[in-house]
Amino acid sequence: MIRKTRLYTPGPTPLLPAAQFAMAAADMHHRTPEFRALYQKVLAQLKIFVGTKNDVLLLSSSGTGAMEAAVTNLTSPGDKVLVLTAGKFGERWTGLVKAFGCEPDVVSAPYGQTFDIAQIRAALKPEHKAVFVQATETSTAVRHDIEAIARLLKDACSQALLVVDGITGLGTTHFDVDGWGIDVLIGGSQKAVMIPPGLAYLSVSDRAWAAMETSKNPRYYFDLRKERKNASKGESAYTPAVALIAGLGAALDYIAGQAGGDLEKGRIALVNNAQVNAAATRAGLVALGFRLFAPTAPAAAATAVAVPEGMDSSDMVKALKTRFALVAANGQGEMKGKLFRVAHLGFFDYLDTIALLGAMEHIAKDTLGLPVAYGQAVEAAQRVYAEAVKQ
Amino acid sequence: MIRKTRLYTPGPTPLLPAAQFAMAAADMHHRTPEFRALYQKVLAQLKIFVGTKNDVLLLSSSGTGAMEAAVTNLTSPGDKVLVLTAGKFGERWTGLVKAFGCEPDVVSAPYGQTFDIAQIRAALKPEHKAVFVQATETSTAVRHDIEAIARLLKDACSQALLVVDGITGLGTTHFDVDGWGIDVLIGGSQKAVMIPPGLAYLSVSDRAWAAMETSKNPRYYFDLRKERKNASKGESAYTPAVALIAGLGAALDYIAGQAGGDLEKGRIALVNNAQVNAAATRAGLVALGFRLFAPTAPAAAATAVAVPEGMDSSDMVKALKTRFALVAANGQGEMKGKLFRVAHLGFFDYLDTIALLGAMEHIAKDTLGLPVAYGQAVEAAQRVYAEAVKQ
Repeated sequence: MIRKTRLYTPGPTPLLPAAQFAMAAADMHHRTPEFRALYQKVLAQLKIFVGTKNDVLLLSSSGTGAMEAAVTNLTSPGDKVLVLTAGKFGERWTGLVKAFGCEPDVVSAPYGQTFDIAQIRAALKPEHKAVFVQATETSTAVRHDIEAIARLLKDACSQALLVVDGITGLGTTHFDVDGWGIDVLIGGSQKAVMIPPGLAYLSVSDRAWAAMETSKNPRYYFDLRKERKNASKGESAYTPAVALIAGLGAALDYIAGQAGGDLEKGRIALVNNAQVNAAATRAGLVALGFRLFAPTAPAAAATAVAVPEGMDSSDMVKALKTRFALVAANGQGEMKGKLFRVAHLGFFDYLDTIALLGAMEHIAKDTLGLPVAYGQAVEAAQRVYAEAVKQ
Repeated sequence: MIRKTRLYTPGPTPLLPAAQFAMAAADMHHRTPEFRALYQKVLAQLKIFVGTKNDVLLLSSSGTGAMEAAVTNLTSPGDKVLVLTAGKFGERWTGLVKAFGCEPDVVSAPYGQTFDIAQIRAALKPEHKAVFVQATETSTAVRHDIEAIARLLKDACSQALLVVDGITGLGTTHFDVDGWGIDVLIGGSQKAVMIPPGLAYLSVSDRAWAAMETSKNPRYYFDLRKERKNASKGESAYTPAVALIAGLGAALDYIAGQAGGDLEKGRIALVNNAQVNAAATRAGLVALGFRLFAPTAPAAAATAVAVPEGMDSSDMVKALKTRFALVAANGQGEMKGKLFRVAHLGFFDYLDTIALLGAMEHIAKDTLGLPVAYGQAVEAAQRVYAEAVKQ
């Protein structure tokens, strides 16, 4: 039987057809008025999408490139920094700051959990130059409370810059970048903005620009001051990923179009879409008897599902692929085999959720022989959805 | 919330991405070796897809163009013909043969039913030059028994050519074109072959070619003998829809690819795919309390659902569109308002069926207030699917 390939991975996420068409048509040179008009339009849209008055810059790199840019532009070797880590992407911050000579203090939460704010308060020192954290930790599908962390820094009169990896957080959770005081907020193209990997974007506060005047880490490709100077003329410092930028513009048009052309409202609708689909998915999976890996602080970007003792989540991922061409993500690192993850960020709709749960019911009943009934997960999800759209 | 547009209409059907890409790339002139290679490849593939040793020709027109070609190439004004009609497309045969001066006898079945073979036997006269019929009547989602009709003609030693509109039948039901003796079998591009409208194809038997030597109806664009002559050189008589032909080639490659590159087996798998999805859909809709419009001879191409007395199927079609961006088809002509139709032909998979039924449950329960439970239709479909894939 026909099996359509369906990505449910938390990046890359399903591509928006309108963005695919825009990418296919993006046959232009990047030092032309045509490109400058596109680039300026997309940068202006990104400011609204991120929801900030700060500069927003685009980099032709993966999200990790923008994470590196935050480190190299804002710190100097020997700087004390605070890293908050609760998964593989938190650990990436630790690796990055060490690679560039910083001395990190680390506050950890166990995989599947978020931070105890009191623990962060206790670890924060006046000499910390920056705090690095994820908005949502994609490896465990946990949401961290960025608002509370930002408030903590303010209340402590900390000089530390707040650097947030929002790669899967943007478009799936609410941010008040300027109100809370997020100095750098990082996004990636293959997430809520519905296009392939290859672009990162980040907002940069005035405090962060000021810090760059004295930071001494080496940087060239990711030199944000140079990037800002070029952006002001409608260009990128180096050859940009032109087709992806055209696709990003089309995707942001689509997101705005979901709210009558208002991109700010469209972003709010996109976050709501992820939240409702995530809640419906969680309800469905719990109805099937699965255990959520992150029950207390679940992200709307993705849901992580712990498989029962004695079962290997790789088998689940494989069964979904083989039987339904449905691509889920396994656990990363030492979580491999213990959990699998399905995404809700970007171009997912409610009928995708229904299809996922219908497939999961077959895996649970036919493949794993669990004592479940067909329709059980779908029914639980439908109740959540019906309640959500009633409001 | 995001609502992906999902076509469930019995043509146009969902587009195969690989065919879309091939169409976008089809930048070639049609009097070149490059095009001739493509055209010859596609014509050869179509012979396998139709399953015949007869010639198969392509026309740049909708399916109705090929229906007209069958009439004008095979008949002369004043000819007696037999039309078998059980819906809007059967009625199209009557309109066509009359437009070209034929004198039709008509055997009708009520909408939602198929023919009584004894009635056809009684109506068949030795002077009938041709019999015109649908393999599946798309307006009512009924499947006719072409094998039985072909056998009847053979048993009666009829001279009549058997002309079958297989526009939604090809790829959803089995044909033995040469074994049964189908003289003309017609297909359309926007159906099981997963590309947009604009191409028709038809197989032509030796008996049909012979009949063209004496038929006197006027034809020019649809002159099949001219088309055959050009096809033998790898060209079309007039400017062909090049991009659609490239898309058709890619779609036939995909269908073959579903069975390890064997197009004949791929066609059988495609028919099975439609049949299983149709059976699952029927089970789901019946579980929801809906009445099938064609319970005795349901097509696998599409399912027609009768709405209860006092309800207008237009409201159902509208609710599916508004709530889920799911495009179903209303009844045609006097059936408008009384039934709606959902398709299974071409690029549909089982998770599409699950999504459709999940949406239908919301319409039934939330919108129409019917006494149904969430998961009820999905569960019934899942049983059918699990049984089918077990075999």
